[in-house]
Amino acid sequence: MNNFEDWLASPVARLDRVAQEQAYQRQQQLTKPAGSLGRLEELAIQLAAMQAKPLPQINNVQITVFAADHGVMAENVSAFPQSVTTAMIRNFASGGAAISVLANSLNARLSVINVGSVDELETIDGVTDQRIAAGTQNFCHTTAMSSEQLQQALSIGADHVTKCRSQGLELFIGGDMGIGNTTSATAIACALLTLPAETLTGPGTGLAPPGIKHKVAVIQKALTKHQSELKMPWSVMQTLGGFEIAALTGAYLACAKQGVPVLVDGFISSVAALAAEQLLPGSRDWFIFSHASAEPGHQRILTALNAEPLLDLGMRLGEASGAAVAVPLLKLSCALHAGMATFEQAAVAGAL
Amino acid sequence: MNNFEDWLASPVARLDRVAQEQAYQRQQQLTKPAGSLGRLEELAIQLAAMQAKPLPQINNVQITVFAADHGVMAENVSAFPQSVTTAMIRNFASGGAAISVLANSLNARLSVINVGSVDELETIDGVTDQRIAAGTQNFCHTTAMSSEQLQQALSIGADHVTKCRSQGLELFIGGDMGIGNTTSATAIACALLTLPAETLTGPGTGLAPPGIKHKVAVIQKALTKHQSELKMPWSVMQTLGGFEIAALTGAYLACAKQGVPVLVDGFISSVAALAAEQLLPGSRDWFIFSHASAEPGHQRILTALNAEPLLDLGMRLGEASGAAVAVPLLKLSCALHAGMATFEQAAVAGAL
Repeated sequence: MNNFEDWLASPVARLDRVAQEQAYQRQQQLTKPAGSLGRLEELAIQLAAMQAKPLPQINNVQITVFAADHGVMAENVSAFPQSVTTAMIRNFASGGAAISVLANSLNARLSVINVGSVDELETIDGVTDQRIAAGTQNFCHTTAMSSEQLQQALSIGADHVTKCRSQGLELFIGGDMGIGNTTSATAIACALLTLPAETLTGPGTGLAPPGIKHKVAVIQKALTKHQSELKMPWSVMQTLGGFEIAALTGAYLACAKQGVPVLVDGFISSVAALAAEQLLPGSRDWFIFSHASAEPGHQRILTALNAEPLLDLGMRLGEASGAAVAVPLLKLSCALHAGMATFEQAAVAGAL
Repeated sequence: MNNFEDWLASPVARLDRVAQEQAYQRQQQLTKPAGSLGRLEELAIQLAAMQAKPLPQINNVQITVFAADHGVMAENVSAFPQSVTTAMIRNFASGGAAISVLANSLNARLSVINVGSVDELETIDGVTDQRIAAGTQNFCHTTAMSSEQLQQALSIGADHVTKCRSQGLELFIGGDMGIGNTTSATAIACALLTLPAETLTGPGTGLAPPGIKHKVAVIQKALTKHQSELKMPWSVMQTLGGFEIAALTGAYLACAKQGVPVLVDGFISSVAALAAEQLLPGSRDWFIFSHASAEPGHQRILTALNAEPLLDLGMRLGEASGAAVAVPLLKLSCALHAGMATFEQAAVAGAL
């Protein structure tokens, strides 16, 4: 516990301002009107600061989906049955899920970590079994997890990043799978941002309006019941969290501490990023936000994180899918930055 | 001339509604909440209709940059000198330009066609010399090109597409290079949409506010001078056009007639797409719009075409660069569509 507390309190890595300035200067010399590549220029400069080199690169990409179940599913908050969590874990591993196809297309490594499905799973190639429990408790009645379980979930995420980093990780993407997890994530975000349930609650995987109304009531009930315990981010995550959301938070914290760029996925992932930033201010420096989710509450979370996502494609799948779709933008940004000729090299006259 | 007129009047290819419906049905069966991949689902369905097959693919991608100079440069309308047009043609061919790096990264074929630079160019590998003239005439004083020259420019674009199509083209991207060409494109768009110059004029490659004011005056002067000649799209293009914009229009028309999906780049390309749609209504069915340019007039042109671009990254470079950056979205959309498992295949329970 002591080691963990020391780890949690350890600082965020610093961005390399020298590499950032070198990248900025290079962008001014490339054969294009200054600024005409827009956010692709900003990305290259930002990645230079993160990777501490003037010519950043995004070749070694790790995509990790954390999966778990949620006690609050007893309140009937999703359009899908809970059995889908384990069925989708199998689907990730066998290559049929969206993120499997994307990881394969992008030549990225895909890992799946089961941090707490209700159903036990057979041994599956590509799935790490680190089940903390058979799902969280129902936070409408009690605390979702114990403090020890929260520490365990954070550590699973953090240790995973440490392992990946030893293999030359250049970009980390985390994803989530867990039927019912927009309910947990929405409750966490409401508590972290002190907002009522109705401001952030949306359809998740596809609730109709009456289902959304019920979901608002469930979340508001939990927020009211636990009001006195929701002052600090640790307690918020313990009270309302899912194991996979906490594991994502732990992974993001480890990236921020170890200086690994993170490409954040959509709604659930952004809530984990918000929790990381509140647990350790400054973590957000290491986060690039990939896409605006169609889940309506996402925008307020992005605003709270001062984040402007790269894409807005109406996606709302989770699994890290939105972040994966943004990977080519980072790769192309680095390719342009490194590969374009300067005005001098190409003997092109600059702006008058 | 007669053959050309017959060609121009020949109809647009039809979308395949059967393949479109098959693709739509497949999307409903893939292991994800219906609609949760947002525009990536729409793209796969749209490409199925265009390619007339339920599992479309984007492997054979042609990127062609048409380059030319503009007589209106005599009015001092750009931040860059005219010599940059030919310098950039060399830069495209030698691999140092943004589009060269992008084409290489995307494994797309890049062609450069010189349809009318002021300067003569040496023979360059990868550049086709089809100069119509040493730039257009200054449209502040006279008509930019003759009717024969316009036909020539349209034919160069169209013949190029026909040639590419015989090599199995699956997606066509056109781009532009021509110092001063936002002035020409803005004037064309104003005439086609019957808007005053100030509503569409922007900084182009980087004019400061006084330069933009001057550019507005130049364009408005031309619109007023040629008012009686600007009733029909053919005359608009002849009076105000650039050779590269007309060649792009010809290429887009050929794609629409031959059933080749087009990924439209930014401001200049969208004006060419607008001209194509006005010359041959229905052409727009074959256009996918890649990105919202930072050039402020772009939005009104997109609105006129009922187009919602895929990306908004603040890009304003031309050269087909914005379209190239959107190619991975189309590829990933096709990969997801073809590669994901169905609910049945993965034994995943669907929505309740």
